[in-house]
Amino acid sequence: MEIKVLHNILEANDRAADEVRATLAGAGATAFNFIGGPGSGKTSLLERVIPRVADRLRVGVLEGDIATTRDAERIAALGVPVVQLLTGGGCHLEAAFVARGLTEVGLSGLDLVLIENVGNIACPAEFDLGETAKVGVLSVTEGHDKPGKYPLLFHEVSALVLGKIDLLPYTDFDMQAFEADFRGLNAKAPFFPLSCRTGEGVAAFVVWMEQVHSRETDFGRGYGQQ
Amino acid sequence: MEIKVLHNILEANDRAADEVRATLAGAGATAFNFIGGPGSGKTSLLERVIPRVADRLRVGVLEGDIATTRDAERIAALGVPVVQLLTGGGCHLEAAFVARGLTEVGLSGLDLVLIENVGNIACPAEFDLGETAKVGVLSVTEGHDKPGKYPLLFHEVSALVLGKIDLLPYTDFDMQAFEADFRGLNAKAPFFPLSCRTGEGVAAFVVWMEQVHSRETDFGRGYGQQ
Repeated sequence: MEIKVLHNILEANDRAADEVRATLAGAGATAFNFIGGPGSGKTSLLERVIPRVADRLRVGVLEGDIATTRDAERIAALGVPVVQLLTGGGCHLEAAFVARGLTEVGLSGLDLVLIENVGNIACPAEFDLGETAKVGVLSVTEGHDKPGKYPLLFHEVSALVLGKIDLLPYTDFDMQAFEADFRGLNAKAPFFPLSCRTGEGVAAFVVWMEQVHSRETDFGRGYGQQ
Repeated sequence: MEIKVLHNILEANDRAADEVRATLAGAGATAFNFIGGPGSGKTSLLERVIPRVADRLRVGVLEGDIATTRDAERIAALGVPVVQLLTGGGCHLEAAFVARGLTEVGLSGLDLVLIENVGNIACPAEFDLGETAKVGVLSVTEGHDKPGKYPLLFHEVSALVLGKIDLLPYTDFDMQAFEADFRGLNAKAPFFPLSCRTGEGVAAFVVWMEQVHSRETDFGRGYGQQ
């Protein structure tokens, strides 16, 4: 008789994430998981990024929220396919939910999938969604002391966006202290200070996203990945 | 034979919260649970409030964080007793941990206990800590669309602080839309727009805190509560 083992939630999530990864690879799509606090500027960043790539890359969006379709409505206004993933209370997205979202959003026709996680910098960092890269989103008004206080996210990200730099003159944000704190947790991830209000710095972040996508798809072709 | 029942985490927390409530009542102390996103200004608010009440009320602080003692160090500089509660990854405080913190901070000598939750507006709202009142802390740079997107917190709070109003001229925060969204979830809780940078609005919030404390202690005396 086979013994049934109920795996814990993170193990179950990891299996679902592996399936998402295989699905993305099969479709030749690259997925970015945007993680940041409530009001850090994740949706505004997507609103800036999408028009810059839409002429050459097909983009779909999964919008994670506890409640309302407000963010999906903002994205739909840009004319790209979007699915709102409502957790109904849950403070993070999980991979099985993302898998359903990929089906709904029409993955087969997409190059990039932008996943906006629930506004929270604690738990979302613990859950692998099968994404190609995690992008941390912090804003200068949240203060320079955040990396050490929420270390997992800053350790896990493949890139870090520091938004709202147009507000730097009105805050006491210490850029040197911030970078030192972040680099103590993550030596490699590129760092993109930018402003979604003025557009400053957005182009460099978009170039990075396209590089990640090119690398993934070239790698997929060259080495026979799924 | 007695059957052992393992209650779920929220039920276990509720029992611990009832114990915290009884302990606070026995000590004649009033506890405020400050809940807000990372960088919303919770610690800055405590830094503004404490010097305003320290001449007539004895204050102790429990600082909830995932990692580092940065916030407790800021509070210790004000000369009040403080205990850092490190969750080591957990995205919220639970009542049993607060109970230990109350012992460590020296509850018997205190009038007010200020509990700063982990920076997160999802899960902390689900966990009763046995506090007298939950205080929501949002800042204008997080945007006016937050109440509907994180409804439980805004529904649960006994008061709402909207901080960083000195930055209002540099944002597109819509105060009317915000208040309408908040009032749709919570008709009664007083609302305190303020700036910890300039000090504007802090006095009104402190008056409210003292009223809550007076009401609690009068009620305790008058009606024979523990």
